[in-house]
Amino acid sequence: MSGIMRIGRLELRVMDLEESVNYYTDIIGLEETGRDGDRVYLKAWDEYDHHSIILQKSDSAGMDHMGFKVRDIYELEKLEHRIEQFGCKLTRIPYGTRLAEGQAVRFEIPTGHQMELYTEIEQVGTGTGIINPHPWPDGLRGIAPHRLDHTLLTGDDIEAVTRFFTEVLDFHQTEKIVTVDGEVMIGSFLSATNKAHDVAFVKGPDAKFHHAGFYVDNWYEVLKAADILTKNEVPVEVTPTRHGVTRGQTVYFFDPSGNRNEAFASGYVSYSDFPTITWTEDKIGTGIFYHRRELVESFSKALT
Amino acid sequence: MSGIMRIGRLELRVMDLEESVNYYTDIIGLEETGRDGDRVYLKAWDEYDHHSIILQKSDSAGMDHMGFKVRDIYELEKLEHRIEQFGCKLTRIPYGTRLAEGQAVRFEIPTGHQMELYTEIEQVGTGTGIINPHPWPDGLRGIAPHRLDHTLLTGDDIEAVTRFFTEVLDFHQTEKIVTVDGEVMIGSFLSATNKAHDVAFVKGPDAKFHHAGFYVDNWYEVLKAADILTKNEVPVEVTPTRHGVTRGQTVYFFDPSGNRNEAFASGYVSYSDFPTITWTEDKIGTGIFYHRRELVESFSKALT
Amino acid sequence: MSGIMRIGRLELRVMDLEESVNYYTDIIGLEETGRDGDRVYLKAWDEYDHHSIILQKSDSAGMDHMGFKVRDIYELEKLEHRIEQFGCKLTRIPYGTRLAEGQAVRFEIPTGHQMELYTEIEQVGTGTGIINPHPWPDGLRGIAPHRLDHTLLTGDDIEAVTRFFTEVLDFHQTEKIVTVDGEVMIGSFLSATNKAHDVAFVKGPDAKFHHAGFYVDNWYEVLKAADILTKNEVPVEVTPTRHGVTRGQTVYFFDPSGNRNEAFASGYVSYSDFPTITWTEDKIGTGIFYHRRELVESFSKALT
Amino acid sequence: MSGIMRIGRLELRVMDLEESVNYYTDIIGLEETGRDGDRVYLKAWDEYDHHSIILQKSDSAGMDHMGFKVRDIYELEKLEHRIEQFGCKLTRIPYGTRLAEGQAVRFEIPTGHQMELYTEIEQVGTGTGIINPHPWPDGLRGIAPHRLDHTLLTGDDIEAVTRFFTEVLDFHQTEKIVTVDGEVMIGSFLSATNKAHDVAFVKGPDAKFHHAGFYVDNWYEVLKAADILTKNEVPVEVTPTRHGVTRGQTVYFFDPSGNRNEAFASGYVSYSDFPTITWTEDKIGTGIFYHRRELVESFSKALT
Repeated sequence: MSGIMRIGRLELRVMDLEESVNYYTDIIGLEETGRDGDRVYLKAWDEYDHHSIILQKSDSAGMDHMGFKVRDIYELEKLEHRIEQFGCKLTRIPYGTRLAEGQAVRFEIPTGHQMELYTEIEQVGTGTGIINPHPWPDGLRGIAPHRLDHTLLTGDDIEAVTRFFTEVLDFHQTEKIVTVDGEVMIGSFLSATNKAHDVAFVKGPDAKFHHAGFYVDNWYEVLKAADILTKNEVPVEVTPTRHGVTRGQTVYFFDPSGNRNEAFASGYVSYSDFPTITWTEDKIGTGIFYHRRELVESFSKALT
Repeated sequence: MSGIMRIGRLELRVMDLEESVNYYTDIIGLEETGRDGDRVYLKAWDEYDHHSIILQKSDSAGMDHMGFKVRDIYELEKLEHRIEQFGCKLTRIPYGTRLAEGQAVRFEIPTGHQMELYTEIEQVGTGTGIINPHPWPDGLRGIAPHRLDHTLLTGDDIEAVTRFFTEVLDFHQTEKIVTVDGEVMIGSFLSATNKAHDVAFVKGPDAKFHHAGFYVDNWYEVLKAADILTKNEVPVEVTPTRHGVTRGQTVYFFDPSGNRNEAFASGYVSYSDFPTITWTEDKIGTGIFYHRRELVESFSKALT
Repeated sequence: MSGIMRIGRLELRVMDLEESVNYYTDIIGLEETGRDGDRVYLKAWDEYDHHSIILQKSDSAGMDHMGFKVRDIYELEKLEHRIEQFGCKLTRIPYGTRLAEGQAVRFEIPTGHQMELYTEIEQVGTGTGIINPHPWPDGLRGIAPHRLDHTLLTGDDIEAVTRFFTEVLDFHQTEKIVTVDGEVMIGSFLSATNKAHDVAFVKGPDAKFHHAGFYVDNWYEVLKAADILTKNEVPVEVTPTRHGVTRGQTVYFFDPSGNRNEAFASGYVSYSDFPTITWTEDKIGTGIFYHRRELVESFSKALT
Repeated sequence: MSGIMRIGRLELRVMDLEESVNYYTDIIGLEETGRDGDRVYLKAWDEYDHHSIILQKSDSAGMDHMGFKVRDIYELEKLEHRIEQFGCKLTRIPYGTRLAEGQAVRFEIPTGHQMELYTEIEQVGTGTGIINPHPWPDGLRGIAPHRLDHTLLTGDDIEAVTRFFTEVLDFHQTEKIVTVDGEVMIGSFLSATNKAHDVAFVKGPDAKFHHAGFYVDNWYEVLKAADILTKNEVPVEVTPTRHGVTRGQTVYFFDPSGNRNEAFASGYVSYSDFPTITWTEDKIGTGIFYHRRELVESFSKALT
């Protein structure tokens, strides 16, 4: 029963801002909702907050921070207290730092990633409105996902970051990957919601970004996504398949800066009493790519 | 941020117990997990609690009660206090009353339906297990939904029952149907989770049951469900279509006692800050049956 | 082993030409390929001939004629001879009568409909081209079917028209509907190809048009079609369902003049030795609308 | 306008007959229809002829022959004459050689494969029958394809075998792969029907078998097929994807003897005037695996 409502935004570093904006609007099909110096703000058609993706012009690719929206300021205060008790140093991001946002608190999680919590962001509404809405808006472009769904990050201490998310932030762990002897956790899938995951961590270098997952409705939409990627010559890393973990359907590809993206569909509903699923490392291939049953080499190497 | 975790069970009254068990196991594809006098306990393959449907032999069809699982006893105590403050009288359902359950509290909601809250129920696990699971088990029968998804009930005072669920039980209202002048709420869709609804109410006679919704993964599963219903000569009320409300895909049909069932797929993810969608009564047809754009007469009349 | 290659075109009478063109291009998603006085020529993106639908401005709705493309002039001559032997009077439609067409022969079939056979029509190519093509073109609009698939017509003597198509034109009958006593054929589904049907006839008034079927790839495309129809307030007669006959998936709706259209998916492959399927009249509801299991009243009455 | 009606059967050599029968019945989901010494006869549920797959116990894997069903004996005689004129030596396969078959003529095509033509085979009917049939039978197992769809073979002289199929057997070529300079044909896709292909050839060693394609209805069925393969630890070579050639959706895997199988869905309808699509060798990756855009090494090497 987390005070955290959802993964609200990812700020991604990109090298060629215009090329990246074209990619995220034409290929992914997000909507540009604002610009502010070296940042461009984007949202998916089914999101009502002002943005879920921020592209930040930079010299290198990667994730600047991930932001989670908290239910209200009382929950936020409670979480701040617990985060500090855990030993993280909080920084205040003042109002006006980025477009359409209120203030936020920022801190580093045990894997070295920057995370923000916030309650305020301007609402601009979905593409379908809230009065007698149609199920989808006209004029959709590209993959046209419903929303930012989750992110996967790498880090060294998966146990510690799992404790942080479950004990401090009240996430529940839906799945974990452990060494065959059961001694070491090397993958952890964490949810603050009823989704199969909102954030996940796999063993790897600290502070690195693995991918941003965007939600599409079904397996045919995964096919459409993959078709669009080929039509536009976007590098595809993993062609349409099912995950063992989450059972979701997926295709992986890269933005122009090399940040990995995913179009993700289906996946189970999880409740906070969901019995954590365990994958043993010898089955990690099946867990990640259910049909191929082995990892793709680039999958653990291409990090930003 | 509700202390309620999910709709955990429906106890349905059925007239011919064996015929009903056959229907719920062979056609719907639930698994029988126990029997206890005049009750038969059933679960869907993707549920881990002992049961989500209880069939109770009776002289008439309908819903005995709906039960919601609460996160823990602290949340339950808090909810009990608020329910009593709202003016509902709580009854204790002692341990041992029904199979595999712990104790529960029972009360009548403003629409006259019996509702229970509980934290304890035996866990029997899903059909796929929690160690290196496959995405679906062998041997599925019938429609084979993942889980009980939601229920729809009728009652006179939709405003009051909405206040009860939002203010007392911390549900969020995802959608509502109002008269064209906006004065009277005649439909209310309520969620304690990130699902589009866990329970819903439409204007009608108090204490009546409209339907139990079972979740299937996608639009092809809705087709398969409809095919199975025709192959087995189960009465189908509404053939495959989309809802405007929830955007879900659906087929409606009846169990042997006349209790309405639904196979429901897709539908959006809702968060607790989800801006409530409003349907005006003149668009209620489109809201309920997006393609037909008008209600089916039986839909508001066949209640149990 | 028919000399007939496919159903090549339907010329439909419409009352408001511009409104009809807008409907067939924006909602159905055909491409306008030419205009010629009171006729507008249209094709689906996956067709390579110049047109498959001709809209003819008229005072009343209906079908002017259906045209079938023959493999070559030798086959055409052979068919002409047999048609005349059957007792039909052939008329020559000279080159230049309609845009992009060569000459054709025209005759009346036993149900009073005008039919043409031809071998020549200008080819304009599909939307994807023939060199390293992508699977679908950019810029699709509306339902965007692959092609004209079939037509259904009404007439009094279903036996005679079936004999004409099978004995004269070498179609094979894939399915038939007969009275319960087996005495009278009241429905006949006929194929010159490996499709489930190219043309079909059901008992009713002579010379009347029931519907034009457009092919979409799958059940999700049928859903998309139905969504588009509601978004554009196009009258939908039958919401998404499966046919018993052909097993295809379908949605029925009307053009602005009242001509019925269908978006049709799937359906089996038939070969010329396909054992004809028989539906008895008592099961006609299930045969036509597999989930509803009864006819819709308008379905046999709304003819143009 | 071919006298050939369809690809009627493949006789495959397998090493462990019982293991192979288990695979083809439990995993693929074919039905065993007979046994005859070292041969086991199988059919898909939607086929009405006695068998489409014959498993022949042997010391090595591969294809014994492919058989095509001809419309009638007049067409067969005509084809025999032309085959001999082309320079192939015909052998008579007498009645009684294999179960449920009439006589056949056998010959070697320019790529060294054995091919048979026949008109007679016992009919046993489909799983759904021909009186008021349901769209699919109860009790389906495994991938449960509708039918044998096509085969792909390798050989040295793709031009010659193409001439043989188009000029002698009246197939039409739907697609071809050519070297970038356009000089040499290295792939050829050939259809005697309205399917995208009935048989195909790619450059490689003569007389080798590449794969047998089984038809499944849609992209979700391809997913189900891939899931079943992983659940049963069947080697999967190519996970679900789309072909550029035929646009079909596919998954490739191996039977216990190493014969490659495919579950194939969708793909366009072709007519005999279908303008042949050309793929240039530099795009062969995209042509074969549309999302991956490059060949898998095993795909051209694993031949039986």
